[in-house]
Amino acid sequence: MRHIYRCALRWSDMDAFGHVNNVVFLRYLEEARIEFFFRLAREASADAFTGGSVVARHEIDYLKPLVHRQEPVTIDVWVIKIGAASATVGYEVKDGETVYARASTVIVPYDLERARPRRLTAAERTFLEKYGDDAAGSPVPS
Amino acid sequence: MRHIYRCALRWSDMDAFGHVNNVVFLRYLEEARIEFFFRLAREASADAFTGGSVVARHEIDYLKPLVHRQEPVTIDVWVIKIGAASATVGYEVKDGETVYARASTVIVPYDLERARPRRLTAAERTFLEKYGDDAAGSPVPS
Amino acid sequence: MRHIYRCALRWSDMDAFGHVNNVVFLRYLEEARIEFFFRLAREASADAFTGGSVVARHEIDYLKPLVHRQEPVTIDVWVIKIGAASATVGYEVKDGETVYARASTVIVPYDLERARPRRLTAAERTFLEKYGDDAAGSPVPS
Amino acid sequence: MRHIYRCALRWSDMDAFGHVNNVVFLRYLEEARIEFFFRLAREASADAFTGGSVVARHEIDYLKPLVHRQEPVTIDVWVIKIGAASATVGYEVKDGETVYARASTVIVPYDLERARPRRLTAAERTFLEKYGDDAAGSPVPS
Repeated sequence: MRHIYRCALRWSDMDAFGHVNNVVFLRYLEEARIEFFFRLAREASADAFTGGSVVARHEIDYLKPLVHRQEPVTIDVWVIKIGAASATVGYEVKDGETVYARASTVIVPYDLERARPRRLTAAERTFLEKYGDDAAGSPVPS
Repeated sequence: MRHIYRCALRWSDMDAFGHVNNVVFLRYLEEARIEFFFRLAREASADAFTGGSVVARHEIDYLKPLVHRQEPVTIDVWVIKIGAASATVGYEVKDGETVYARASTVIVPYDLERARPRRLTAAERTFLEKYGDDAAGSPVPS
Repeated sequence: MRHIYRCALRWSDMDAFGHVNNVVFLRYLEEARIEFFFRLAREASADAFTGGSVVARHEIDYLKPLVHRQEPVTIDVWVIKIGAASATVGYEVKDGETVYARASTVIVPYDLERARPRRLTAAERTFLEKYGDDAAGSPVPS
Repeated sequence: MRHIYRCALRWSDMDAFGHVNNVVFLRYLEEARIEFFFRLAREASADAFTGGSVVARHEIDYLKPLVHRQEPVTIDVWVIKIGAASATVGYEVKDGETVYARASTVIVPYDLERARPRRLTAAERTFLEKYGDDAAGSPVPS
């Protein structure tokens, strides 16, 4: 199951070349990810990811240029991999069949009190397992 | 040979967690890359990359949190790979021995008149070959 | 008549103090203004403001702190003053009865070909006159 | 005495019109202001403005378009007015004799513990009085 996030563009997302700047795509992913980890995960389990989480890695491929328009873009979010102390989410920034970018992020849950990374909880794993990509099947717990 | 870029931080680069936001690191890389491709390359060959170039892919690993300070960070830039119609640059965002992030970007030179990617020119390849990583040796032309 | 713009917030609009940063409010006004001058004005008159326009001045008063949330804020836009070669728009950034900020911007229409400011056209004045503030009455053409 | 801040531009400060965007000027002012209130004021008096401070108002006039370049712009910062519980700072964004923008900001010192504005301390007033504009004379304490 993919989570579908609708992301409003801003005119200022464009750079001097008149396209949405490549860095701004990562902002769009951040918005989608924050909704996924802060709102959706906490609806599923009240204390999921409450200590915060850290971005450990991004990969992003740019496929088509995007120009500012009123209509939001759609960001599909799903879970690629569930590790002991990390999760990898995949994204597609799209508009119908048009895919502007594909990306993935490695997220590490964080223990604020001890100021260090921590393992995923059982509730967090249960939440993440629901969002495996349909095509690829459920994310394989490691 | 690595190109060394000194990048001034802004207070607003920090997010609500009080660290330089992960997306902002890509901004820093953009500044380093623009100096590398727009200023350095054109000093070497006046019409290098004049038609613009497109970011096709980023990879970035975050190693240590960075907090705003007056002192700039250093960004090392070098050339990992030279393709027929693309170049891959590597970066390290650092401060002395401390490395905050490692990243790479695939850049595709662009033919503005025909609105499509184009092959690297001989002058562009000569420029890029000077910036192979010392440790790894010169980038291997393909 | 006021134009009502709904502006989506982004998590990254917050700064290290955990509030929407004061500078970002100007971004919100920009989005509202672009819809007003680019989309609304051109629906009313196809060539309104086509040569672009320039921001000559902003004033903004911050009344209440704003924190990121899913729900958009509302931005009221109206016309305070219509000059020979400028227009002043007013804004309120709000949420129901709560007003976060009040602001105004002086906009100067621009003649791109001659690279200099130009007078408002009759069609532009007709458009602007529709958006006088109800409380204050129609903006007085000068 | 004016405080002189040198502000590095970023390529991404330009918008789709190819000029430094009007909103970004407020970012430049923020950088200058943070150095002024956080670094300079605390060098003068260790606990000056430690509870934070809030922006209550901005005014800015845009005089000339600015395009990205390697060389920093200069921001003059001085104190226009010292109130009981606020200070007004003035700025000029310049490059030699060329002035790109003139602006002012009303700053309100904040009592974090009580979560409300507070009066300026004697040490803060002493600091601010040093930065009256030369032309206009010292800022008049009220």
